Amino acid sequence: MPLLPDVEIMTIGDELLYGQVIDTNSAFMGQELAKIGLRVRQISSVSDRADEIVAALDQARERAQVVLITGGLGPTKDDLTKHVLARYFQTELVLHEPTLEHVEGIFRRFNRPMLDVNRQQALVPANCEVLFNAVGTAPGMWFEDQGTVFVSMPGVPHEMKYLMTEAVLPRLQQRFQVPPIEHVVVQTVGLGESFLAEQIADWEAALPTNFKLAYLPYLGGVRLRLTGHADGLPDLRPRMEALLPELRARLGEHVFAEGEVKLEEAIGRLLQERGLTLGTAESCTGGLLAHRITSIPGSSAYFLGSIVAYDNRVKQQQLDVKAETLAAYGAVSEETVREMAEGARQRLGVDVALATSGIAGPDGGTTDKPVGTICIAYADAHQTVSRRLTFNRGRQLNVEYTVTMALNLLRLHLPALAEA
Amino acid sequence: MPLLPDVEIMTIGDELLYGQVIDTNSAFMGQELAKIGLRVRQISSVSDRADEIVAALDQARERAQVVLITGGLGPTKDDLTKHVLARYFQTELVLHEPTLEHVEGIFRRFNRPMLDVNRQQALVPANCEVLFNAVGTAPGMWFEDQGTVFVSMPGVPHEMKYLMTEAVLPRLQQRFQVPPIEHVVVQTVGLGESFLAEQIADWEAALPTNFKLAYLPYLGGVRLRLTGHADGLPDLRPRMEALLPELRARLGEHVFAEGEVKLEEAIGRLLQERGLTLGTAESCTGGLLAHRITSIPGSSAYFLGSIVAYDNRVKQQQLDVKAETLAAYGAVSEETVREMAEGARQRLGVDVALATSGIAGPDGGTTDKPVGTICIAYADAHQTVSRRLTFNRGRQLNVEYTVTMALNLLRLHLPALAEA
Repeated sequence: MPLLPDVEIMTIGDELLYGQVIDTNSAFMGQELAKIGLRVRQISSVSDRADEIVAALDQARERAQVVLITGGLGPTKDDLTKHVLARYFQTELVLHEPTLEHVEGIFRRFNRPMLDVNRQQALVPANCEVLFNAVGTAPGMWFEDQGTVFVSMPGVPHEMKYLMTEAVLPRLQQRFQVPPIEHVVVQTVGLGESFLAEQIADWEAALPTNFKLAYLPYLGGVRLRLTGHADGLPDLRPRMEALLPELRARLGEHVFAEGEVKLEEAIGRLLQERGLTLGTAESCTGGLLAHRITSIPGSSAYFLGSIVAYDNRVKQQQLDVKAETLAAYGAVSEETVREMAEGARQRLGVDVALATSGIAGPDGGTTDKPVGTICIAYADAHQTVSRRLTFNRGRQLNVEYTVTMALNLLRLHLPALAEA
Repeated sequence: MPLLPDVEIMTIGDELLYGQVIDTNSAFMGQELAKIGLRVRQISSVSDRADEIVAALDQARERAQVVLITGGLGPTKDDLTKHVLARYFQTELVLHEPTLEHVEGIFRRFNRPMLDVNRQQALVPANCEVLFNAVGTAPGMWFEDQGTVFVSMPGVPHEMKYLMTEAVLPRLQQRFQVPPIEHVVVQTVGLGESFLAEQIADWEAALPTNFKLAYLPYLGGVRLRLTGHADGLPDLRPRMEALLPELRARLGEHVFAEGEVKLEEAIGRLLQERGLTLGTAESCTGGLLAHRITSIPGSSAYFLGSIVAYDNRVKQQQLDVKAETLAAYGAVSEETVREMAEGARQRLGVDVALATSGIAGPDGGTTDKPVGTICIAYADAHQTVSRRLTFNRGRQLNVEYTVTMALNLLRLHLPALAEA
């Protein structure tokens, strides 16, 4: 097995040090590198000053064999990074014809005049290999210097992602003969990390030593990622997949998908398979439930609408919640939320409906119903189901949790395919 | 003027290097340090390995006089950081009685059994000064070692923020005699950075040399932050504020607030001052408009509800949009969105209403109405106003931009206080 290189990530820009921009590029790079089995040794964010960039480059190459650099490549940054890199490698900038043609083509297509600053994007240090950037004007650059690989990418996230995926990761795998690695992701919802770990402890303990399970928690659930490192035996992936039926059996209804699928996406598929339409009635979630559902492209095929009934009058007038129900049980009650779901079905003319009502906080709590009291309901032609939950981690998280739990309630009660 | 120290930020945790967690702590610290006039020299994220933490500490103190460390302090992290720090400073861990009492108090209050791991949170390196953490169990720690200040804080964001605000920033100001610095923030919306800069170029050029203006862009607008550094003359802040009337005059209706106020918050205040209620009718924004409005605590005082009419049938049945209007102009048209706003006013029984309809993408565009075509409308008792806009930067950003523009439309057309 070849010795794998450590990787260092360096992001350049005063705006990172001032905290005006949150560095999300490093997290993406870290995730993708972990997926191919490479370790990130350190992430550094440095200023736009040439001497400080050089000092950071010197330190990075002491720690790692690969240094991935982002930022400082756009025309507004005065191409600082590539000038610094040219000086660092004691070479000069040369014109890269294919990049110039690419940039010219982009400006022709958008019918915009090309400025000198745009033309300069085609200048690159003479010792680099250019990585073609199909989604922007600043090219990626690959350097090898005394055994260390340096790669420079634009700081614009979607350009960096394109270059990482299309050029940098495959090249690193080839250059360092990184052994193949496979991942299988199982999405779960509704079970905390420690409960989940308990249910699969012996399954996990019995995994071959080249298989590793990672718990990746999110609000309301956990993604499980099984990673298989090559062991010289054939059929790595099929052997991993053969372990999944037992995992699914242990976790039962908590598993909602395999692969990188969001809960709202999984629900869209279930609805489309059954030819069912969905609507929502929202109080405490204030529109976020509908927003999560409609964040999936194509959701208009099954999602018809929502009635956000923040005020009790709207609950009565638009959702036909009875005044007596509100008086007897209050707006945050299973009784009210059931009527909201049923009202949404009728009013929106949908097959299935979800409803939410809760005390998101910070105010509005009582002794009986403290902040974090949440009621959710699901209704279809045959049944109405409701739940009362408690979750209190601040207004925003309370609302996000409610949305996830409501989506899950739908998933668990949607009629089976044959019935729908 | 005393020489100001450079600051180094160090975040500890394998989860940062794997990209499982995005480091938002550094951005907060960078912002707050910039506000008091201190420069961040570098931000480093390092692993949980003791030798790598020590190497990073050695390098950080070479570059800066203050090193702020977060992460590695919770019980689940096995208190790694403080053990490493104790060894780094060649001292041992000692029990800090006030912290033990504080932790015991928290467990008593929640009536939970205290484990040994919780008790160990009261152990701190003998050479540190403890910074009291009122919002958690892991204390902050302040070290001075051969002229360098090291501060260790928990990685939990709200605990780090508490310690920064209450203890670290004031102590740094005092310890290094940081001269006072004042900030005045002016919030604008609806004008791009370069247009805005043009309108105030000569105003900005005429600022005293100790006043600096920062442009902080967000989707749909720009925050302007005027920073005043002490110049030995009295009344720094009043002198800064005296410049604002001219700035406001230049930017006119684009200014919506002074200070750290969100647009949805500013609108809530305007509605409350006028005693008006608000409702929304949403197509392309799919609930996000209502969610942004209801993300403000107390919004139930003026926001009654929303009808998310994703489907045309819902637009007709719940918002009384005419079939002829939809047939003649389509769902994405000023005609339709005006009827939506008027329908929402009637159906929700609100004083003023906002409506949105657009092609968020990635699909659904036509030659006439490409992806990114957006229509918004405002309606009150006296008038209905609509706009057609174009904005295409991907589904999620298109929707977010539409929400901001709709909120701004309301702000610009709400009746003046005397009329309402």
